Amino acid sequence: MLYDAPVKDMRFLLTHIGKLNELGTTSLYQDLVSDDLVDAILTEAGRFSADILAPINRQGDLQGSHIVADDVRTPDGFKDAYQAYVEQGWASVSGPVDFGGQGLPGSFSFLVQEMVFSANLAFGLCPMLSVGAAEALEAHGSDELKARYLPKMISGEWTGAMDLTEPQAGSDVGALRAKAVPVDDGTYRITGNKIFITFGDHDFTDNVIHLVLARLPDAQPGTKGISLFLVPKFLVNDDGSIGARNDVKVTALEHKMGIHASPTCAMAFGEDGEGAVGYLIGAPHRGMAAMFTMMNNARLNVGIQGVAAAEAAYQQALSFAQDRVQGRAPGVARDQSSAIIEHPDVRRNLLLMKAKTEAARAICVMTAGALDHARALEDEAARERAKLRADFLTPIAKSWSTDIGVEVSSIGVQVHGGMGFIEETGAAQFMRDSRIAPIYEGTNGIQSIDLVMRKLPLDNGSVADEFFADIEETAAALGAHDNAALTRLAAPLVASLAAARQATNWLRERAAQNPTDLLAGATPYCTMMGDLFGGWLLAKKALIAFEEGDDVWGSAFVAARLETASFFASQILPQVAAGASAVQGGAAGLFTLDPIAMKA
Amino acid sequence: MLYDAPVKDMRFLLTHIGKLNELGTTSLYQDLVSDDLVDAILTEAGRFSADILAPINRQGDLQGSHIVADDVRTPDGFKDAYQAYVEQGWASVSGPVDFGGQGLPGSFSFLVQEMVFSANLAFGLCPMLSVGAAEALEAHGSDELKARYLPKMISGEWTGAMDLTEPQAGSDVGALRAKAVPVDDGTYRITGNKIFITFGDHDFTDNVIHLVLARLPDAQPGTKGISLFLVPKFLVNDDGSIGARNDVKVTALEHKMGIHASPTCAMAFGEDGEGAVGYLIGAPHRGMAAMFTMMNNARLNVGIQGVAAAEAAYQQALSFAQDRVQGRAPGVARDQSSAIIEHPDVRRNLLLMKAKTEAARAICVMTAGALDHARALEDEAARERAKLRADFLTPIAKSWSTDIGVEVSSIGVQVHGGMGFIEETGAAQFMRDSRIAPIYEGTNGIQSIDLVMRKLPLDNGSVADEFFADIEETAAALGAHDNAALTRLAAPLVASLAAARQATNWLRERAAQNPTDLLAGATPYCTMMGDLFGGWLLAKKALIAFEEGDDVWGSAFVAARLETASFFASQILPQVAAGASAVQGGAAGLFTLDPIAMKA
Repeated sequence: MLYDAPVKDMRFLLTHIGKLNELGTTSLYQDLVSDDLVDAILTEAGRFSADILAPINRQGDLQGSHIVADDVRTPDGFKDAYQAYVEQGWASVSGPVDFGGQGLPGSFSFLVQEMVFSANLAFGLCPMLSVGAAEALEAHGSDELKARYLPKMISGEWTGAMDLTEPQAGSDVGALRAKAVPVDDGTYRITGNKIFITFGDHDFTDNVIHLVLARLPDAQPGTKGISLFLVPKFLVNDDGSIGARNDVKVTALEHKMGIHASPTCAMAFGEDGEGAVGYLIGAPHRGMAAMFTMMNNARLNVGIQGVAAAEAAYQQALSFAQDRVQGRAPGVARDQSSAIIEHPDVRRNLLLMKAKTEAARAICVMTAGALDHARALEDEAARERAKLRADFLTPIAKSWSTDIGVEVSSIGVQVHGGMGFIEETGAAQFMRDSRIAPIYEGTNGIQSIDLVMRKLPLDNGSVADEFFADIEETAAALGAHDNAALTRLAAPLVASLAAARQATNWLRERAAQNPTDLLAGATPYCTMMGDLFGGWLLAKKALIAFEEGDDVWGSAFVAARLETASFFASQILPQVAAGASAVQGGAAGLFTLDPIAMKA
Repeated sequence: MLYDAPVKDMRFLLTHIGKLNELGTTSLYQDLVSDDLVDAILTEAGRFSADILAPINRQGDLQGSHIVADDVRTPDGFKDAYQAYVEQGWASVSGPVDFGGQGLPGSFSFLVQEMVFSANLAFGLCPMLSVGAAEALEAHGSDELKARYLPKMISGEWTGAMDLTEPQAGSDVGALRAKAVPVDDGTYRITGNKIFITFGDHDFTDNVIHLVLARLPDAQPGTKGISLFLVPKFLVNDDGSIGARNDVKVTALEHKMGIHASPTCAMAFGEDGEGAVGYLIGAPHRGMAAMFTMMNNARLNVGIQGVAAAEAAYQQALSFAQDRVQGRAPGVARDQSSAIIEHPDVRRNLLLMKAKTEAARAICVMTAGALDHARALEDEAARERAKLRADFLTPIAKSWSTDIGVEVSSIGVQVHGGMGFIEETGAAQFMRDSRIAPIYEGTNGIQSIDLVMRKLPLDNGSVADEFFADIEETAAALGAHDNAALTRLAAPLVASLAAARQATNWLRERAAQNPTDLLAGATPYCTMMGDLFGGWLLAKKALIAFEEGDDVWGSAFVAARLETASFFASQILPQVAAGASAVQGGAAGLFTLDPIAMKA
């Protein structure tokens, strides 16, 4: 089997870290969530990913997508796989019930998405972006637009794409230049060029619905002058049927390091006439707000891509290490050979992969769970706290998970030895595919800056302080436990927490005195917080799994939770203190050298 | 300019870290080394690399090498570039004078090699392996074999290839099965299949000289039954002219993650008859000893590939960051934009790239210098100490430099943002190309095991202790200095040294009690030693550069040495303590989970 979905870890996380059961008591999710349903859907999604998506992952990499005439053609098998995906209802798992969706919590569809990404990252980007576009339309579009477009976007009959980036406007979205001019019938004519548009065109569906950022004639410069428009590839008639081709087309595909099957499109609007027909979504000049709603979710969806790549890489490395015989492990007789999994250094690499992957998944699920709670809880104050917690955790979840996605898939290559560098093996593809994740939806540098500049001060710092207090609570519970395997997880957690708090206090002091110090320390701080966060959640999982016991979760599962937590505590948590030290380096040294001295 | 060789850093390192001047006083290198000569050759090699090799690097990646009929055809421009390389004498820089070489020290040709690798890693592998094959032939071959083959291998008219790996014999060389049968004329007939043979065939030259490991009929199993043979692609007549085609041919090329221009060959020996004609090199069953001579150098040559990729990636990222305008840096007016190099987080990434690259280069040059001293010093005891030092440093130099090669080139991708993932930019190629370096010539795991099992105990541990004592000496000199920028480098170095010594002592204790603990701690130990080694040498460089002053080295150069040392001390050295802690994790936890629980 190319992929075997980690259903049990996911179910455990949804229950104990994402607190799915609490959601089941809310009016929004009542009757939608039960243990049996969760298990059944996760199992089925795992099967679909393994049977339909994983087998075409390699040919997707080899063939890539191409432009034929004016349209994108995806690799063999991708269109059929997408149709199966839609037919089996995977496109609509968390879509709104009012528009035909199944209305399940986001943290739940999020793990379905992880499976899809593990099996075929390039494929999964299309439905992911489509769901994001649908959410923006649902939140900000007029009733008329929603009625016309949303049901088919929710079902997956059409897909949505997000058209933000322009050559001069990447991280700096405010620099975009695409134009929108109103016409008499209340629509707009959109002109301009966009780049890096994922699945901006494809052959999966009959229509592609673009959400496009552009400027109205009276727009002010920067992000406050940006509006959001819906621009369909084909216009849609009043009866819902497909009408004339709109003046939007793909002009080129990028040649990328990975995710070859995913067409990364350069799009031209209005090349053949006065502009593509567009419809305003939300208020004029308020496009960034609409995009931000969506991008916050998208960031977390990119985070889970890191987890997915790491999981896939781990599974393949584990399997290879059991099969590959080479050398003799300690204690093995002279005339025998060993599977490389018996070598301590290989075993260490595998445990490192497993521990980081599970830590990242736990981080992502806690963040997704907080988003669900922010949406569904009945009590307004509780909703607001959950929202603040999700806001705080999101940049850590996105950056740490995508960093470890590249790291873990690189270790996967290493475990394969020379075979890891040969593309046929597949290990290298996980690494190449995952390399985009630390970049898109806000580079990890930008996530780190968001963390120190905007998230750390949330509600006067109380959001961060509550996060630390939660860790302290787990450490106390571990320290007071009568099981030695759990007790010894406490000290490393306590030490790391103290280091992280110290670094946090330092940043808070510098915020008043020299904010540039925060920018200089942002990346090590965000990494450090992720290390602490991961170590905490693995320890918390070990504690809960042990308490609920072998009868509930199985002895192998419980033993593995204890061991990954212990490994992380011993091998990764010490880096928190090192990170805390690096955070406090300050900005002064960064600007000592001018560009000429940087070359010297 | 695609590449601008860091000549001044190299010259500084050769003088102060590789101690090239001391070599100039030995009879071996007398009159061969002078400051002027070093500068002239480095400058010229930099120019050749930039003008001839860098411009074909991208097309080499795009085209790759291919088999046409029974021969390998390299990408456009590669054959011409090789001919220019030979004509300008770069193939023979450190070759033995007796066979037409220029006889310059290895540490010197080593940096020429770095330039070649920076400009075009795939190209550089051919001459690198050829030099290694020539060295093995020189050290172990008969006078007759040497007379017939060596001059043309030294000049570069023919190239050498090393044929070790077989599908079942990768890291475990002793598992190889290729056979050699003696025939009446004193030659042998070689049969079997080899894989992963770099430049095992190509169109650069008229002949390819294979050094092949195979077993004689009376060989015992394992590494003690392996012999080394010379197997030319074309037999060579007594007059030196090329004769009949030998029964060795390329059967397939691997499709790899990177270094596409370098043909990674599957080779078949004796497919068309009773075997390829081979000539024994050295004594029967002593092939591993001959290969080890060569592989020790090869390991260091792979280490410098990491430095080279990192340097190239850094140069490109630095250039991009000066050109790319995006967002506003702190303190910049609202209506202005900034080059991204002005953003603290980007600047931090660039300094991180620079500091790690220069640290790795310093590590490699010190190791290469020790090898030169081990060869050339007049005093036998001094030679022996230099040899032991080189043996100790080599696994650190190989593994740390190749690890940072991947890391730094990945940061280079990140600095480019979305453009970094687009192959056209070139940043991704550095990362893909460099990913092989932690794998070949002994994976970094194997280097780490070599360090803890064989190198740490060298001469009762005195080699390691002397290494630590040298660091202590630098720390003391820094601490006693009257310049504050130097003084403050002392404390982080002292703290890291103490942590490393503690981890070392722990390993020594465990060596007696449970050697598996050494294997478990090998990788974090080797990484930790590299971090310490790099921090030490950057601090030492800063001290020397400051003392010699701006007049000798230029103010930008001196300032950059101080700043990279300071950055490394603040941002990287704290990881030594974290690594030391990880080293002491022990092996027990690694084997708690069986493969089933590893999946749970």
